[in-house]
Amino acid sequence: MKTRPHILISNDDGILAPGILNLVEVASELGDISIVAPDSAQSGMGHAITIGRPLRVYKEELPGGLTGYAINGTPADCVKLATGVLLDRAPDLILSGINHGANTSVSTIYSGTLSAAREGAIQEIPSIGFSLCNFQHEADMSTAKAVARVIIKEALEQKMPAGQCLNVNIPDLPLDKLKGIKVTRQAEGRWTEGFDERVDPFGRKYYWMTGEFVLTDKNNGTDIHAIEDGYVSVTPINRDMTRHQDLPSLSEWTLEL
Amino acid sequence: MKTRPHILISNDDGILAPGILNLVEVASELGDISIVAPDSAQSGMGHAITIGRPLRVYKEELPGGLTGYAINGTPADCVKLATGVLLDRAPDLILSGINHGANTSVSTIYSGTLSAAREGAIQEIPSIGFSLCNFQHEADMSTAKAVARVIIKEALEQKMPAGQCLNVNIPDLPLDKLKGIKVTRQAEGRWTEGFDERVDPFGRKYYWMTGEFVLTDKNNGTDIHAIEDGYVSVTPINRDMTRHQDLPSLSEWTLEL
Repeated sequence: MKTRPHILISNDDGILAPGILNLVEVASELGDISIVAPDSAQSGMGHAITIGRPLRVYKEELPGGLTGYAINGTPADCVKLATGVLLDRAPDLILSGINHGANTSVSTIYSGTLSAAREGAIQEIPSIGFSLCNFQHEADMSTAKAVARVIIKEALEQKMPAGQCLNVNIPDLPLDKLKGIKVTRQAEGRWTEGFDERVDPFGRKYYWMTGEFVLTDKNNGTDIHAIEDGYVSVTPINRDMTRHQDLPSLSEWTLEL
Repeated sequence: MKTRPHILISNDDGILAPGILNLVEVASELGDISIVAPDSAQSGMGHAITIGRPLRVYKEELPGGLTGYAINGTPADCVKLATGVLLDRAPDLILSGINHGANTSVSTIYSGTLSAAREGAIQEIPSIGFSLCNFQHEADMSTAKAVARVIIKEALEQKMPAGQCLNVNIPDLPLDKLKGIKVTRQAEGRWTEGFDERVDPFGRKYYWMTGEFVLTDKNNGTDIHAIEDGYVSVTPINRDMTRHQDLPSLSEWTLEL
């Protein structure tokens, strides 16, 4: 008898978010699943890990009779604790999401969802992060589920390479309005700093981070363009942070001590 | 009269850590400085940003009669708040560090120090992160200061390109034992998950993240090799997370909805 693949699922919106529960539903059709996710929202946590305080693990009963592990840490912590301590069997695939909100362009760097997937890839386990381009808690996840099913199936059938990490962004459209799936690169862009300055009841200033996204990428083929054109975007994500194209010019610096 | 360059300084060890105070001393010789740094240790924070709670800014008197801004947030928050709200004049260069501990190989991803620098590069400001390969609070910073002086001077003279971000790691050696400065790429490697399981006074388990670094890179020219050979390592850091070499094989996937 063929063993079903073992799929570890995490996210950054917390173990009880609708997005992860929808992903669990899809993945359960395709493999044996384990769920290890943060006990609270960890959006914008980037690839943070917890080193200054200890981590705790709580069993959490989920809808559908499943049990997950909730961790008082970051998405990357969850993957580390799962593979290092909690799971008896190494996962064949790690999934993160479905995130409530897009993770395109530079948001890939700030994303907690992606950090769980990237941590998987660092550990040589194929990993995929899923994000729906709608940040509402109540967003309709039916399209995202259909897309996730196709991509997870193909990932298992293609025997995704060990160190590979994919960033999947899904437009907020009905399934019959989706034009297809495109392989893309990360668009160049940034958030302009907007801060909402307020005064608390005690007369002290505080700031909410806001800001608007500015797309600076002039060329096609990016995650943002795919989404805007009604396509699912699939971007392979690196764990090598080197900007290789800068190496030649740097070698010309005079760096003598 | 030539205007002195404006240098913004941040870090991840907190505004009162010896590392940042040493970097402030060196940078003050070379430009007009502003200091915006976390009010507490933010090691391992990756590229986290604070979106679920507001940020506060406190003026902090530093040794030498300087005033800095302390923020109750992450290193990336500090750079965003500095450029978005606190500074009247845009910085010409952003420095982060000097970190107490190496930021080589995959630690580049977990590093808060690097995230302040990478955030600067995202904002099109040349940025450099400095790390000393000694995590002790009391580490001797004299070599690191000498190295930082050479690199900052050259960065200002070379007119570092706007989106460039450098990761500088400095061996923990006396200056006369340093062999020089090498331009490198990030070494392939990972931390093996080790967790120290303990039981609190109330009978509940908790875990400290530990682990050992495993170098999997077989080739030369990496940050780790440079440090081991007694050289300062200078690695250019990317904000494009796309793993471009994966694009061709992914295009062969059957991704039909």
